[in-house]
Amino acid sequence: MTTTATITKQFMTSEQILEHWQGHRNLTRRVIEAFPEKDLFEFSIGGMRPFAKLACELIGIGGPALKGIVDKNMEAYNEDGFKPETKEDLLKKWDEETETINTYFAQISEERFQETFNLFGQYEFPVYQNILYFIDNEIHHRGQGYVYIRALGIEPPFFWERF
Amino acid sequence: MTTTATITKQFMTSEQILEHWQGHRNLTRRVIEAFPEKDLFEFSIGGMRPFAKLACELIGIGGPALKGIVDKNMEAYNEDGFKPETKEDLLKKWDEETETINTYFAQISEERFQETFNLFGQYEFPVYQNILYFIDNEIHHRGQGYVYIRALGIEPPFFWERF
Repeated sequence: MTTTATITKQFMTSEQILEHWQGHRNLTRRVIEAFPEKDLFEFSIGGMRPFAKLACELIGIGGPALKGIVDKNMEAYNEDGFKPETKEDLLKKWDEETETINTYFAQISEERFQETFNLFGQYEFPVYQNILYFIDNEIHHRGQGYVYIRALGIEPPFFWERF
Repeated sequence: MTTTATITKQFMTSEQILEHWQGHRNLTRRVIEAFPEKDLFEFSIGGMRPFAKLACELIGIGGPALKGIVDKNMEAYNEDGFKPETKEDLLKKWDEETETINTYFAQISEERFQETFNLFGQYEFPVYQNILYFIDNEIHHRGQGYVYIRALGIEPPFFWERF
């Protein structure tokens, strides 16, 4: 067996990914705002969920997942705790979660990003992969939202506008 | 003026983001494959581009952008060089770009990820942000593709299936 020296290059810091994520969350907030109230809760294509339901999924992941990671708590994912009835309810909760995410994210050490954690007792991956998944999942569902908005004849916010 | 000691935490390495990106590219490849030939080039919702056109945008970004970064070449973005006429053409080019991306990505140093570069002579951001944008843009457009596929009555590939 030979020993191989691996040169590891840092791609980005934890502060940078947090800022990146919050930029995406700002954009998703604009997409929520762009929907007419009724369509936010009812409009759908191809049997997929309305955008309010997708936003609730995102709310059920971000903050609770980071809290789970920090507390090493593997409690199951639960989307049923929050059932908004208006766009205002949804936006209020969205903004509360912005703070929750900032608070818990700051408590994750560099070592933990590389450690495996069984998130929600179900998703056993390195923490950095779980965090990338939260962001990717948000972009993915928001991409759906863009089609809904276009199909409703509304101009969506610019994809590159974040803050 | 006071000096502040900043503790910088690494979030992930460059090898990890490359693997993550290529995982997403595999999923996008599956989405291309899932479209019926005709719909890949023609189906659209809300006046948006058909999925083949979106895939050509992604092909016009990934490899050429990394080459531009490595060569410090600020040549403009150009999508017109590649005009596939079949799904097979598109997939062949997609696979070629997989190699191009691997080749050029490996040549970016740790320092360069944090340096600002005027990509395509137009997008002046730190290199790590430009790379995140390529991945985000792919997830965003692929999210559109998922709605097209569902609207066509086809079951899309699992979002979490990458390799």
